[in-house]
Amino acid sequence: KQSYRIAVLPGDGIGPEVMAEAIKVLGAVQEKFGFTLDYQHYDVGGIAIDNHGEPLPAATLAGCEEADAILFGSVGGPKWEGLPPEKQPERGALLPLRSHFELFCNLRPAKIHPGLESLAPLRADIAAEGFDVLCVRELTGDIYFGQPKGRSGEGEQETGFDTMKYSRAEVRRIAHIAFQAARGRRGVVTSVDKANVLATSILWREVVEEVAKEYPDVTLNHLYIDNATMQMLRYPAQFDVLLCGNLFGDILSDEAAMITGSMGLLPSASLNAKDFGLYEPAGGSAPDIAGQGIANPVAQILSAAMLLRFSLKQEAAADAIDAAVSKALSQGYLTGELLPPEQRDQAKSTSEMGDFIAKAV
Amino acid sequence: KQSYRIAVLPGDGIGPEVMAEAIKVLGAVQEKFGFTLDYQHYDVGGIAIDNHGEPLPAATLAGCEEADAILFGSVGGPKWEGLPPEKQPERGALLPLRSHFELFCNLRPAKIHPGLESLAPLRADIAAEGFDVLCVRELTGDIYFGQPKGRSGEGEQETGFDTMKYSRAEVRRIAHIAFQAARGRRGVVTSVDKANVLATSILWREVVEEVAKEYPDVTLNHLYIDNATMQMLRYPAQFDVLLCGNLFGDILSDEAAMITGSMGLLPSASLNAKDFGLYEPAGGSAPDIAGQGIANPVAQILSAAMLLRFSLKQEAAADAIDAAVSKALSQGYLTGELLPPEQRDQAKSTSEMGDFIAKAV
Ligand SMILES: CC(C)[C@H](C(=O)O)[C@@H](O)C(=O)O
Ligand SMILES: CC(C)[C@H](C(=O)O)[C@@H](O)C(=O)O
Repeated sequence: KQSYRIAVLPGDGIGPEVMAEAIKVLGAVQEKFGFTLDYQHYDVGGIAIDNHGEPLPAATLAGCEEADAILFGSVGGPKWEGLPPEKQPERGALLPLRSHFELFCNLRPAKIHPGLESLAPLRADIAAEGFDVLCVRELTGDIYFGQPKGRSGEGEQETGFDTMKYSRAEVRRIAHIAFQAARGRRGVVTSVDKANVLATSILWREVVEEVAKEYPDVTLNHLYIDNATMQMLRYPAQFDVLLCGNLFGDILSDEAAMITGSMGLLPSASLNAKDFGLYEPAGGSAPDIAGQGIANPVAQILSAAMLLRFSLKQEAAADAIDAAVSKALSQGYLTGELLPPEQRDQAKSTSEMGDFIAKAV
Repeated sequence: KQSYRIAVLPGDGIGPEVMAEAIKVLGAVQEKFGFTLDYQHYDVGGIAIDNHGEPLPAATLAGCEEADAILFGSVGGPKWEGLPPEKQPERGALLPLRSHFELFCNLRPAKIHPGLESLAPLRADIAAEGFDVLCVRELTGDIYFGQPKGRSGEGEQETGFDTMKYSRAEVRRIAHIAFQAARGRRGVVTSVDKANVLATSILWREVVEEVAKEYPDVTLNHLYIDNATMQMLRYPAQFDVLLCGNLFGDILSDEAAMITGSMGLLPSASLNAKDFGLYEPAGGSAPDIAGQGIANPVAQILSAAMLLRFSLKQEAAADAIDAAVSKALSQGYLTGELLPPEQRDQAKSTSEMGDFIAKAV
């Protein structure tokens, strides 16, 4: 019987409570699909700062190294907001994890679920056209990690600087992922850059064009980031796969998430070349609602499904979770933030959602 | 009698036809407020490429140097889209003009006009909360102009790179403009950066905090660009003045413009330290509707008003134009793109709009 080791990093805020539901659902699929998951829990983010003095303790990193995949909750909260940037829970945990494991490929699906159109902050007629995108974001390059980065000079001439950069090899590997994903979807890749200003983007566009030749069945469009941000509001239904560098992907994937109006439903995967990955909900740690049992566990549960699909290759189990979630949503089985105020009394709790989905798989 | 020299650069697409209306309206105010405007027309953008081989001919630049201000139309179109980036009409004209005249301060007001809420791509209840922001974007620094910028290496290791940078002095002068503007508005500055990742942003934030101390009456908030992009959709009414570097300002000011749903109404100003400036509509050259007499001239007319206000210090004349435009809009005197399909037969033409506004001043 196949057995896998999962590093579980619940983190802060609602992290632990939604993580419990994801593990509940994983428990249901492991029985049904005949594999075993061995969970090791580690501190990360704010709680790791409190317990060990740093957002990503060595023991956590070592635990992740021994695992087949990382299931990540969410990190951060007001308590740690005053810390210097590199010590903060989110940045101080995520960037080192991404770079250590070379998690270059960030996949963030964002869609408006049928029946949940009214949650979108978009005008009703625009939301009604539908929205279902996959953001493919490069995650280990660009201005996040480019050197040199720092400060020089004195007084009023003191200058802060960062380096944006991409090599052909880096662009090529992420572009292939976008085109392959488009084949399994609606066959359209929109590559987002700022090639009218950035040398990095000119090279990006060249390589994306080269890769596109290998996928004659996929349509490629290019958009400048400023225009992409606008098109996303005006006509979001036009997009299928969005291919972006690290910085533009950060911005655009968050815009796409907000367009759905249901951040609590959106999972993400960050993968390396060996399909090792970190899986986390797109939303934050929501400290304001933590501990009340009202947080939506769906994003965490769908992140677990992505883990099964991409790192463990347990596609059938992943499909079962996705289907169970769709069933819950289409039956109106929803947490409070997805319901109009006058229907909040029908809201399901965090654990009721988990129970329903675990039972439905 | 005071006399000013205006360099008029109509450009491509709808540029010439909306420019004609702006000049019509300027004609009305110069009579009423007792000053003279002397117009010199120059080619810019695509038409300059066709006539002189480059988007910003030397004669155009020389003409701008002799002028008190530049009134710019819009540039670009499908005909010139295949050109290499630095030769393209928009980029090839605007970036050299900004850098030559050190137009470091870009002001882009964006608001939902009362009565035009339904044009916004936002959900009705969100649009109803109102939206009225001023984007203050730094325009001569950042990754647009930072050196080094280019390529190095061979084969798959060939790398494109760009340098983001800001000095304290650069951040300080644009920050002062944002705080001063906030004083004349609702007293809130939201500074947008990515200080959890970028060294440039950490310095940016430090200087903005310093400047804020000189404006104790103004509230300062900081937002990461990814979060700002989301908040703009979720709760746009919270914003007053947005203070951004060149790249984030490019993205966010376009998002703000699109949120109004009425790009044809939005002017912009790009100023240097001597209040010399370039004034242009926020929308593009709209080649698809050029020459039909249906383009909205309001953005160009309001850009002319900004020119009077900021470069010529003819505030009363500027106020008169702003008031005339508000009158037209509030009386439902609108071009077709602002009307629902079933009311398009009531649409005013480009020149009817110009006539009405000229008469109303
Ligand atoms: C925390 C931060 C460094 C991070 C990023 O910018 O990548 C976050 O916004 C994300 O998108 O995962
Ligand atoms: C044409 C382009 C270089 C320019 C920019 O990015 O600044 C444009 O998008 C703008 O905002 O004026």
